Amino acid sequence: MPLVVQKFGGTSLGDADRIRAVADHVARTRRQGSDVVVVVSAMGKTTDDLIHLADSVSSVQPPREYDMLVSAGERTSMSLLTMALADLGVDAASFTGSQVGIITDGDHTRAKIREVKADLVRDALAAGQVPVVAGFQGVSEDHEITTLGRGGSDATAVALAAVLGADVCEIYTDVTGVFTADPRLVPEAHRINRISFEEMLEMAATGGRVLMLRAVEFARNHNVPLHVRSSFTWEPGTWVVEEDADMEEAVVTAVTHDTTEAKVTVSGVPDRPGVAARLFRALADRSINVDMIVQNTSAHGTTDISFTVPKADLPVSVETAQAHSNELGASGVTSDSNVSRVSLIGVGMKSHPGIAATMFETLANEEINIDMISTSTIRTSCIVRTDDVERAVRSLHAAFELA
Amino acid sequence: MPLVVQKFGGTSLGDADRIRAVADHVARTRRQGSDVVVVVSAMGKTTDDLIHLADSVSSVQPPREYDMLVSAGERTSMSLLTMALADLGVDAASFTGSQVGIITDGDHTRAKIREVKADLVRDALAAGQVPVVAGFQGVSEDHEITTLGRGGSDATAVALAAVLGADVCEIYTDVTGVFTADPRLVPEAHRINRISFEEMLEMAATGGRVLMLRAVEFARNHNVPLHVRSSFTWEPGTWVVEEDADMEEAVVTAVTHDTTEAKVTVSGVPDRPGVAARLFRALADRSINVDMIVQNTSAHGTTDISFTVPKADLPVSVETAQAHSNELGASGVTSDSNVSRVSLIGVGMKSHPGIAATMFETLANEEINIDMISTSTIRTSCIVRTDDVERAVRSLHAAFELA
Repeated sequence: MPLVVQKFGGTSLGDADRIRAVADHVARTRRQGSDVVVVVSAMGKTTDDLIHLADSVSSVQPPREYDMLVSAGERTSMSLLTMALADLGVDAASFTGSQVGIITDGDHTRAKIREVKADLVRDALAAGQVPVVAGFQGVSEDHEITTLGRGGSDATAVALAAVLGADVCEIYTDVTGVFTADPRLVPEAHRINRISFEEMLEMAATGGRVLMLRAVEFARNHNVPLHVRSSFTWEPGTWVVEEDADMEEAVVTAVTHDTTEAKVTVSGVPDRPGVAARLFRALADRSINVDMIVQNTSAHGTTDISFTVPKADLPVSVETAQAHSNELGASGVTSDSNVSRVSLIGVGMKSHPGIAATMFETLANEEINIDMISTSTIRTSCIVRTDDVERAVRSLHAAFELA
Repeated sequence: MPLVVQKFGGTSLGDADRIRAVADHVARTRRQGSDVVVVVSAMGKTTDDLIHLADSVSSVQPPREYDMLVSAGERTSMSLLTMALADLGVDAASFTGSQVGIITDGDHTRAKIREVKADLVRDALAAGQVPVVAGFQGVSEDHEITTLGRGGSDATAVALAAVLGADVCEIYTDVTGVFTADPRLVPEAHRINRISFEEMLEMAATGGRVLMLRAVEFARNHNVPLHVRSSFTWEPGTWVVEEDADMEEAVVTAVTHDTTEAKVTVSGVPDRPGVAARLFRALADRSINVDMIVQNTSAHGTTDISFTVPKADLPVSVETAQAHSNELGASGVTSDSNVSRVSLIGVGMKSHPGIAATMFETLANEEINIDMISTSTIRTSCIVRTDDVERAVRSLHAAFELA
């Protein structure tokens, strides 16, 4: 019998009606002849409400207690969904991350999964039950409750699917799949039917917010096919799978954009070994997640290094760069938070030269200035003014005939 | 160093302000030189809200899932209180019933505590921390999450106090202690300073709603002094302790009343062995909690058996009695839900004859008819019309000079 892991996010479980609709869909999947393992997030705004409560009782929130607090959310949604399944005559049983044996490291609020035991899930399946598992949460080797950070429920679902050898991991959300561009910006954007793990990784890394990077990485590493689809329309969505021959037909798969980062430039840096290493080690020591890094070939013995960081980390990043400015021999540190990134993604880029050139021409025709450029084998990204980013996305979507 | 277990109920933790006030009190107790173990209920109406959600997703609520659902409530309150303690510089750590090793039987929604391990609580105390423990919940020997039913958080607190050898178990609530009568009925009722376990048991069993029967029984069996007090005024409340010489001075300690029960009478029953046994076995088989039972001496070879049951169980009780009516040889089954119980409680009754006589005279002077009478060594209860019960309580409170 095929095995499907179905993961439902917070909006899919937003209220009692939504929970009943999800139960109905799970029951239908069973009737159609599949074994089902369900993974749930907390209902709607539950986690936000709990965090708000925490803020109002204390300015000090020990990470251990934070995890204990927010893990109450999935506990509620999983038992409610299990009751709703019982109401439909489906034998189901709920399990916490701890009960299922989602073993993590001890890094509270952003723990990493180390091992998935899943004994109780296998037992429940063998007994003909639907296991309903709390996403987002695990237990450390010291028996402490941990949470997995943003996108953690997707990670739980993919990890369970990998360990159980599921045929597919279905990620239900409030959109109908992965689009060629953000439909709020580009009305003619359309849903992609199949996309490779690598493209999905690049999309997740460059502003496509449907799936979190970690879950896609895990799915790729364990070759778990993902199916991203809507829990409101229930129509087939986007399959995320290993790259295959068909995909190479499409040169460009999608245009993504990201307005959450800011740019820092360290200028006049002597062009000698070890300078970049010292700068980025200093930033790493402050736990700053540097994203794009660009360094030009040196002209007169000095060079400029630019990088992007999350906007929230900009002050610390500038302060860190300035603190190391003398040591690096740099002439100055500047920053700009009015920038955005636009990216083209497509496995076809590997074998189709000229994509980058067309991208730059398209932006030039729109009189959009390019501030930084960075490329991978299947992605080309440009930093532009935030005011220009919507026009950039629309013009690139049209130029590469994605509509 | 003295060890205090402090238990806070739902109203004591009703919102962020109340949680901060509780944290403040715990911190003060620590500063005064006591080790503290805190036991918490779910915040205010949390449990009711969860049950309402369950009702709206499903008419079928498997007890296992019900326990998983409602146990989310204490998880929230305990981590919030721990954060509030951290905000005051108090090193605290929260623990679920499962983490603390509150081992119960597998009877979901009304599990009984079998064993309390408390290893993590001892470790936390040894490390100078304040352990904050989820009340009301435990874990079965099959590793299933269970809840202890009504008054369960008090049971957790008393069990922990017993196992840890605490000097006192403080039960914080929204009243200032145990009163000589319900102050809403008798304005001149006053708080009792000391009361014996036995009296408290009789009060809990006859309508005094401050403490649940199970927690008092457990406290008596393990000789854990209880201190029932207010988390709003923080003033000293009522101590519940072993009976001592002082207490015998007071003949009557309190008047209680209970309007939640109804009366069933099986009349014309042949006066021969085994009849009562058959009737009450049949009721027990339907899980009906029979309270007061009165059977008169037989007059003409037949007798009447009357008993009280919770009003909600009245239809099933009557149906059960009627179904066994022929088998019992009874002439009829009648019922009355317009009855209430008024009780006098006092250890002094043991050595002071005439208390019951004074009680009956007092009621007679008020022209209150007595329907049933039942006594123990330290309690006398009468069933009267519900319309008369408030007058009965007031007149008895005055007659025994409790004001």
